[in-house]
Amino acid sequence: MRIYLACTVRGDRGTIAAARHIHDRLVELGHDVLTSHLLRDDVDAVERNVSNHDVFLRDLAWLDSADVVVAEASGSTFGVGFEVGYILGRAATTGQRAYVLYQAEREETVSRMISGLSHAQGAVLGYTTLAEIDAFLDIHLRG
Amino acid sequence: MRIYLACTVRGDRGTIAAARHIHDRLVELGHDVLTSHLLRDDVDAVERNVSNHDVFLRDLAWLDSADVVVAEASGSTFGVGFEVGYILGRAATTGQRAYVLYQAEREETVSRMISGLSHAQGAVLGYTTLAEIDAFLDIHLRG
Repeated sequence: MRIYLACTVRGDRGTIAAARHIHDRLVELGHDVLTSHLLRDDVDAVERNVSNHDVFLRDLAWLDSADVVVAEASGSTFGVGFEVGYILGRAATTGQRAYVLYQAEREETVSRMISGLSHAQGAVLGYTTLAEIDAFLDIHLRG
Repeated sequence: MRIYLACTVRGDRGTIAAARHIHDRLVELGHDVLTSHLLRDDVDAVERNVSNHDVFLRDLAWLDSADVVVAEASGSTFGVGFEVGYILGRAATTGQRAYVLYQAEREETVSRMISGLSHAQGAVLGYTTLAEIDAFLDIHLRG
């Protein structure tokens, strides 16, 4: 499947290691990850010469073409929220799905639109270990 | 019109005064604002006895029933991003619209999904004065 892996670029990058782990697991499961560049340490600098508008249009095109969004949402930022909301807003029509993961210890500080997420076309995981992430991805995204 | 006014609850509340100004202008224009409670200083405490899941389902029901989302997005948080994305993801089908406002001085730090937003069913404003907010709301939301 074509997967849009969402993680924050300009927000708290403290869980980028978890996002990289998710990426590698998705690749192991045989999926095509559209957004690997977001995992680079220098992503914001690399994209400095792309206009805000072009980033928006590119990301929207990727969202339209993806089968699934998987989001590492611990940073609780606008971009990741937008991407999850965009997919769930149209999921009933498109059949697209969204899976949201966040560090369980942040439950009291992240948006309740993360911790309370409930949708026929998606699921959420508050994780404490990488093994829990693997199990969650295997349940929902094993081919 | 029924308007879902989005602003951050658990993120940076530094622009709550701007959100309150937007609220008052929308009411002056004759609209029904569904989410006035978000503007209270004690909103997170007041909602403490509502479960994460119930907040999610309530907010989703409001989003489904709203004609328009207006977002004060300077805090650049997941909840506001989710709400804007949710509406734009289904706007082609529902005719719903989304308008996003943020402090222009934050352009380099907010998500590029805010500053680069471009959509047939929405618009974005980087504002420096309250008068600019009024003019923007008048253009898009005067009955």
